[in-house]
Amino acid sequence: MFTENPQQGDPVEAFHVSSEDAFDASSQLEHSPKSDSLKITSIETRLFQVPLPFVMVDAKHGNHHHFQLVTATVTLQDGTTGTGYTYTGGKGGHAIAAMIHHDIAPALVGTDGTDIAARYDQLEWHLHYVARGGIASFAISAVDIALWDLRGKREALPLWQMAGGTAKTCKAYRGGIDLGLSQSELLDSIRGYLDAGHNGVKIKVGRPDRNEDYARVAAVRQLVGDDIAFMVDANYALCVPDAIEAANHFKQFNVMWFEEPTLPDNYFGFAEIAEATGVPLAMGENLHTEYEFGLAFDHAKLSYIQPDASNCCGITGFLKVCEMSRGRGGGMPVCSHGMQELHVSLVSAQPNPGWIEVHSFPIDQYTTRPLVVEDHLAVAPDTPGTGVEFDWSKLAPFEVKF
Amino acid sequence: MFTENPQQGDPVEAFHVSSEDAFDASSQLEHSPKSDSLKITSIETRLFQVPLPFVMVDAKHGNHHHFQLVTATVTLQDGTTGTGYTYTGGKGGHAIAAMIHHDIAPALVGTDGTDIAARYDQLEWHLHYVARGGIASFAISAVDIALWDLRGKREALPLWQMAGGTAKTCKAYRGGIDLGLSQSELLDSIRGYLDAGHNGVKIKVGRPDRNEDYARVAAVRQLVGDDIAFMVDANYALCVPDAIEAANHFKQFNVMWFEEPTLPDNYFGFAEIAEATGVPLAMGENLHTEYEFGLAFDHAKLSYIQPDASNCCGITGFLKVCEMSRGRGGGMPVCSHGMQELHVSLVSAQPNPGWIEVHSFPIDQYTTRPLVVEDHLAVAPDTPGTGVEFDWSKLAPFEVKF
Repeated sequence: MFTENPQQGDPVEAFHVSSEDAFDASSQLEHSPKSDSLKITSIETRLFQVPLPFVMVDAKHGNHHHFQLVTATVTLQDGTTGTGYTYTGGKGGHAIAAMIHHDIAPALVGTDGTDIAARYDQLEWHLHYVARGGIASFAISAVDIALWDLRGKREALPLWQMAGGTAKTCKAYRGGIDLGLSQSELLDSIRGYLDAGHNGVKIKVGRPDRNEDYARVAAVRQLVGDDIAFMVDANYALCVPDAIEAANHFKQFNVMWFEEPTLPDNYFGFAEIAEATGVPLAMGENLHTEYEFGLAFDHAKLSYIQPDASNCCGITGFLKVCEMSRGRGGGMPVCSHGMQELHVSLVSAQPNPGWIEVHSFPIDQYTTRPLVVEDHLAVAPDTPGTGVEFDWSKLAPFEVKF
Repeated sequence: MFTENPQQGDPVEAFHVSSEDAFDASSQLEHSPKSDSLKITSIETRLFQVPLPFVMVDAKHGNHHHFQLVTATVTLQDGTTGTGYTYTGGKGGHAIAAMIHHDIAPALVGTDGTDIAARYDQLEWHLHYVARGGIASFAISAVDIALWDLRGKREALPLWQMAGGTAKTCKAYRGGIDLGLSQSELLDSIRGYLDAGHNGVKIKVGRPDRNEDYARVAAVRQLVGDDIAFMVDANYALCVPDAIEAANHFKQFNVMWFEEPTLPDNYFGFAEIAEATGVPLAMGENLHTEYEFGLAFDHAKLSYIQPDASNCCGITGFLKVCEMSRGRGGGMPVCSHGMQELHVSLVSAQPNPGWIEVHSFPIDQYTTRPLVVEDHLAVAPDTPGTGVEFDWSKLAPFEVKF
C-alpha cells in the first residue's frame, strides 16, 4: 500500500530559482483539497491471476489460461474508501500494478480524492510520456473507477444515476471466446447461453481456413433462429480484402455487427470494409484514448462503439466516449466490452444505449452481486458507488505478488 | 533474471482437444530455432533512477529530477549476450521492467534469439491487448535493442553497418530541457553547447506567457548568429490557433523546425499549422507504433520525423520508420530523440539522414564511449553490436528494485 510521497527522500537537490524569470512547472498545478479530510491518504493495489474454466481461444490473442484482475482501493483522510479495477487476458498485470503503485499513488496521495475530473487531468499529463494508451490506460482506469466508487458512496448514488440516469436496464448479449471449440462444442456453448436467458450471442471468427468460419456462422444462425441477435468478432485477424469477402459472406446470416474485422489502428480500412459491404462494424476494446476514439468516430464508419472502462481511462474516459458518440458519433449506440458487472450501469444510463457484452471472463462471479439478467435485460445495481463489491475471500487464492 | 517458463507451473489444466475441428492458437506459432545453441536462455532486467544535474523543465512533462534507465540483457544457450535499454523522464520504469520480466521474458526464453524479425512479430501479438503504444513499446524496445546488440556481436558488425551502412557520421544538435531556466541561464547554457562543438541548438518554448517565449527565441537567435541551426520545441503545449500564432512569430528567427507545437495525436492539427504558416514541423518522440507513424506521414504534413528507438519498438521499429520515411514520407529526413549514443548509428546509416538530438538526459555518460562529436558531426562507433556498453559500476549506485 502506498501511503507517502517518495519525493521527500529524493536525493536530487531542489532546483534553486535563481532569478525572476525562472519557471517551476510544479507551481502550475493546484491539487490541494478545500478540506484536509478529502485528501487521498493511501492507494492499495492488488493483483490476482484467476484461472479460466477452459482455455479460451481467439484469432490473435492466442490461448487464454487465466485472466488478471488488478484492484486499487483509494482511502481518504476521513476514512471513506472506494475500489476500482481493471483486467487483462493474462499479460500486463504486473506492469499495471507497478504503475499504480510506483507512479500513480505517489502523485495522488495528498490530493483531493473527490475532484475526479482534476485527478483524471492530472494523471493524463503526469504519465503522458509513457502513456497515451497501453498499460497506463489500464492503470488510470482502475484508479478512476475507485474514485467514482468513492463518490457514489459519499453521495449515496448508484453508478447508473451518476453516469446519466436514463435507465437502469439495458440489452445484453453473451460473447464467447470460442475459436478453439469444435463446432459441436460451439453449438453446445450457444445452447447454454440461450438457456441462461440471453437473446443475443457473439462468436469468434478468424480461423486460418475461412470455410470453417463460414460453416460455424451458418450453424449458429441455424441453431438460434431468426429472433436472436447474432454478432461475429474476428479480433482484427483479417486484412481489408479478406474482411470484405468475409463480411459479404456473413450478410446472408444477418449478423448484427462484424466486430474488429481488421486492425483497430486501421481506421480508414474499417471505412473501406463498411463502404464495400454495408455490414455494420463495431470496435472499441482496443481504443484507449479520446484521440483514438475521435479518429474512429471521424473516419472508421462504425455502426456501434464498444468502449471498455477498464482500459479507456475508467468511468471518466467511458463517459467522454459516450458524449462523443452523441456528437462526432451522430448518436451511435454505446455498447461495451468486458466487465459486465460495471458496464451494465454505464450503458443503461445513456440515452443512446446499445448492448453490453456478457464477457467470458467471469469477473462478476468474484463479486457479491454477479450480473443480474431479467427478461433478457441486464439490471444495474442500486447500491451506492459502482455497485461492484469484490468477494475478497473468493479471490484470495489467486493473489500474486507484484 | 528470468530463466524458465512459468507456464510449466500453471495450475490451469491444458485444453483438451476433443475433436478434429478444435483449434489451438499456440500450434500456429513456430518459434524453435534450427539449433538449440541459438535459444534464448535468460533475460536479465535492471532498473536505474539516475539523478539529473539540475531539475529540467519543459512545458507539459513538468519537472524532471532524474531519468530512469531499464536494461535488458539477453543470453543465448551458446553463451553469447546482448544488452538493450530504454529510458523515461522519471515515470513508468517499474512498469517497463515488470513487463519485460513477467510478460516478455517468459515468452522469449526457448525461442531463437537470432531471428529478430520473428521475435518482433511474436511480441507484437503476444502483448497486443495491453500494448499498441505506451509501456509495452518501451519494454519491447529494450529487448529488441538487445537482440540487435547480440546479432552485431555474433556477426562482428557495428550497428551503423547493420542499419543501412550509408555513413558513420551525422549532423547533431544539442537539445536543452530549459524552460525552467531564466533567460540569462538559458543563454549561458547555449554558450556551453557552442563551446562543446555543436552547430545546432534547440530550446523549449511553451511558457504560460507567450511573450517570454518570444523574447527567449529572439535572444537565442541573436546570441548564436545566422549560421547555427536553431529549433524550438513546445512539447505539445499549445492549441492549434496558438501554435499558428507562435509559428508565425518564430518565422523571423528562421527556426529550422517547430517541434510538437500541439498534441502528437492531433495529426490533422499539425497539418493545419503547417499549411497556415509554412513553418517546418517535427515530431516522433511520442509516436510508438508503425500505425501512428503512418498517420503522421499521411496526414500531419511534417518536415522532419523524429523516432526514438527506446519507445518505437527498438531498432526494428526505428528501421521500419526509416523505410516509411522514404515511401509514405517522400524522403523526409530521419532525425531522432534521446539516446544519442545509439541513434548516431541509426541516423548515420540512412540515405536520408536528418539531425540527431544530443539530449539532456546524459545516458551516454554512463557508457564506456560517450558520444563522440568531431567537426560538428556525431561519429558512430565501430564496435560490433550497438556499440553501447554500459559502465555498470557507474550505474550501480542508482539501481532500484522493481
